[in-house]
Amino acid sequence: MLDCILNKDGTYLTLDDGKTKTRFHAIWLRDNAWDAATRSADNGQRLIALGDIPAETSVSAATLVGDTLRVTFAPEDKSVDYALSWLLENAYDRPANTQAGWTKPSVETWDNDLMSHLPVASFDAVSSDPAALQRWLGQIARYGFAKLTNGPIEELALMRVVKLFGYVRETNYGRHFEVRTEVNPTNLAYTGLGLQAHTDNPYRDPVPTVQVLYCLESSAAGGENMVVDGFRVAERLRAENEEWFNVLARYCANFEYAGSDDVILQSRRPMIELAPDGELIGVRFNNRSTAAITDVPFDEMATYYAAYRRMGEIIDDPAMEVSFRLEPGECFLVDNRRVLHARKGYSGAGKRWFQGCYADMDSLNSKLAVLETEHLAAAE
Amino acid sequence: MLDCILNKDGTYLTLDDGKTKTRFHAIWLRDNAWDAATRSADNGQRLIALGDIPAETSVSAATLVGDTLRVTFAPEDKSVDYALSWLLENAYDRPANTQAGWTKPSVETWDNDLMSHLPVASFDAVSSDPAALQRWLGQIARYGFAKLTNGPIEELALMRVVKLFGYVRETNYGRHFEVRTEVNPTNLAYTGLGLQAHTDNPYRDPVPTVQVLYCLESSAAGGENMVVDGFRVAERLRAENEEWFNVLARYCANFEYAGSDDVILQSRRPMIELAPDGELIGVRFNNRSTAAITDVPFDEMATYYAAYRRMGEIIDDPAMEVSFRLEPGECFLVDNRRVLHARKGYSGAGKRWFQGCYADMDSLNSKLAVLETEHLAAAE
Repeated sequence: MLDCILNKDGTYLTLDDGKTKTRFHAIWLRDNAWDAATRSADNGQRLIALGDIPAETSVSAATLVGDTLRVTFAPEDKSVDYALSWLLENAYDRPANTQAGWTKPSVETWDNDLMSHLPVASFDAVSSDPAALQRWLGQIARYGFAKLTNGPIEELALMRVVKLFGYVRETNYGRHFEVRTEVNPTNLAYTGLGLQAHTDNPYRDPVPTVQVLYCLESSAAGGENMVVDGFRVAERLRAENEEWFNVLARYCANFEYAGSDDVILQSRRPMIELAPDGELIGVRFNNRSTAAITDVPFDEMATYYAAYRRMGEIIDDPAMEVSFRLEPGECFLVDNRRVLHARKGYSGAGKRWFQGCYADMDSLNSKLAVLETEHLAAAE
Repeated sequence: MLDCILNKDGTYLTLDDGKTKTRFHAIWLRDNAWDAATRSADNGQRLIALGDIPAETSVSAATLVGDTLRVTFAPEDKSVDYALSWLLENAYDRPANTQAGWTKPSVETWDNDLMSHLPVASFDAVSSDPAALQRWLGQIARYGFAKLTNGPIEELALMRVVKLFGYVRETNYGRHFEVRTEVNPTNLAYTGLGLQAHTDNPYRDPVPTVQVLYCLESSAAGGENMVVDGFRVAERLRAENEEWFNVLARYCANFEYAGSDDVILQSRRPMIELAPDGELIGVRFNNRSTAAITDVPFDEMATYYAAYRRMGEIIDDPAMEVSFRLEPGECFLVDNRRVLHARKGYSGAGKRWFQGCYADMDSLNSKLAVLETEHLAAAE
């Protein structure tokens, strides 16, 4: 049995199911009305501004009829119906997250254990079957990373991958970039070096939120790709030393790329990025393009460097790493705000040709949400 | 007379010019060495990781020779030269900004007084004269907004504007979008409504950081464009009521667009965005696409709504507004993280045809930095 109780001056109402009391403010309810005068029936966009709603709005009456709450607002004397399910889904009367670095329930952090169930799909399946595409995009949303196999072995095939969910983010590196390496025994020492795991382009703001790396040729032994979950790295750092986690989140680093391409790209952002309420929303880590860090107070700089060093050690720990070899026609995607990637060293001669490009997570998440909605609608 | 003093264990050194003492940690100096083994002479990228530098690094000797500080590090027994000018430019031994909502010295906030000196340039000048382009991009960096006049009156001319500094950000709306309005006396009431000033696409994450709106036809009376500096709005809100400023910065709003274009775009970001050290870096304000706000605690929601309402009132205050009419061949750009834009109502019949597109501030700032560097080099 659900009760609905108004407070004395009607500034909020309380839904009480006997176990839980959930309060909603009058102004919040009025602002979120879904009647045709408030919201467009076509696209859900709000047709009025907050200034069109009286500041002194209160609830003059509220009645439960089945699954609907009918609310009458004063002074407008306007009645609006709310689905109870919508109200409970959007309830805000709950304790706040207090642990800095929390993640959404839809995010699952990982380490080397992900090797046993690599997120992967086949190009044909995701191209032809919306359910397969939904599963694959869901993996990227959950893990920040997935492989795609059995794709075409042809130049610019990566554009067909991006078209599955979004749009290329063009940069000074072009709409796509070439990663070609010729490995011969005389320069193995150099090419064998590998690269420390990093996020791409931290000197760009906004950073590209998706990177695609597509293999077209891979005859050299070694040169595996590896990925590390930056969110798990941040969680582990926090577990080891909360002050180290906090110092990397509290102060901005500087990143710079001023290469030979006629660009001077600079950004000032933290290595661990939190939303204002503590949600972990990004990691930036790139030894090559970290510029002088100038916004950490002198008294905190030694702690900052200890934290930065430890973050790098955790990233380099093989227990954190998922590695895989890409064959021609295979690619992988990372959420570049979260997952670091690297190339391992080579152990033999041969050629390696990859094409890469950037895109954005917002359109990927949108495509996923559309597929989920269609799937639900079809199931009903 | 400049002195250089080491502390007892060599973990930092102090530059003392008799008035100011500026300290630098050994690990910071070592990490920022510019010798050929640490940094690529080609592109300035760091060749080593922090883990390649001993954690116990200290300064064993430091000598001033003219404008150079020569530092010897233990245990590596490695000597590195630093230009004193570089050290003082990158000094971090200074009091932190304590006022939430500070802005960089290169940012100048404005209100209606900007009408007397509108940032504007001519298309021909910025297309042919690097100094004119530098001035114009500098205005956009400083004010978050500028006009461009005397451009070609032809479809997709806006792409030539974007090419001056960067790359189009393609979205579900395409590489560009059409804004066509036919105003006739029978529906003036509707089209005459205008739009509340807003930032574009707050439901996208990352938001497009530049918007270009290019006029191709404008025969209707009225329909002026107007812009409002969201940074000045935030500053004014803070001056009026600091708690209102803080509540909009501390909690995330939700934004959503689930229109008919097969998209469900959602974001969770604050209306006033601060870097972790309080720099004001973004404003999101859009009555049409603000979704139910669900991450403000119950006890703060009434304050949040009061703050949100006041922010809208400040935005609507004519004293904040810069308005102008665009003729065919004219366009304006906004930094969409900062400057709100709107269209005013019409007062007569006619046609209006604009093309719009998105791009990003990072490449614009890069182009500006390259031009400034070339200009300095030419002057030397």
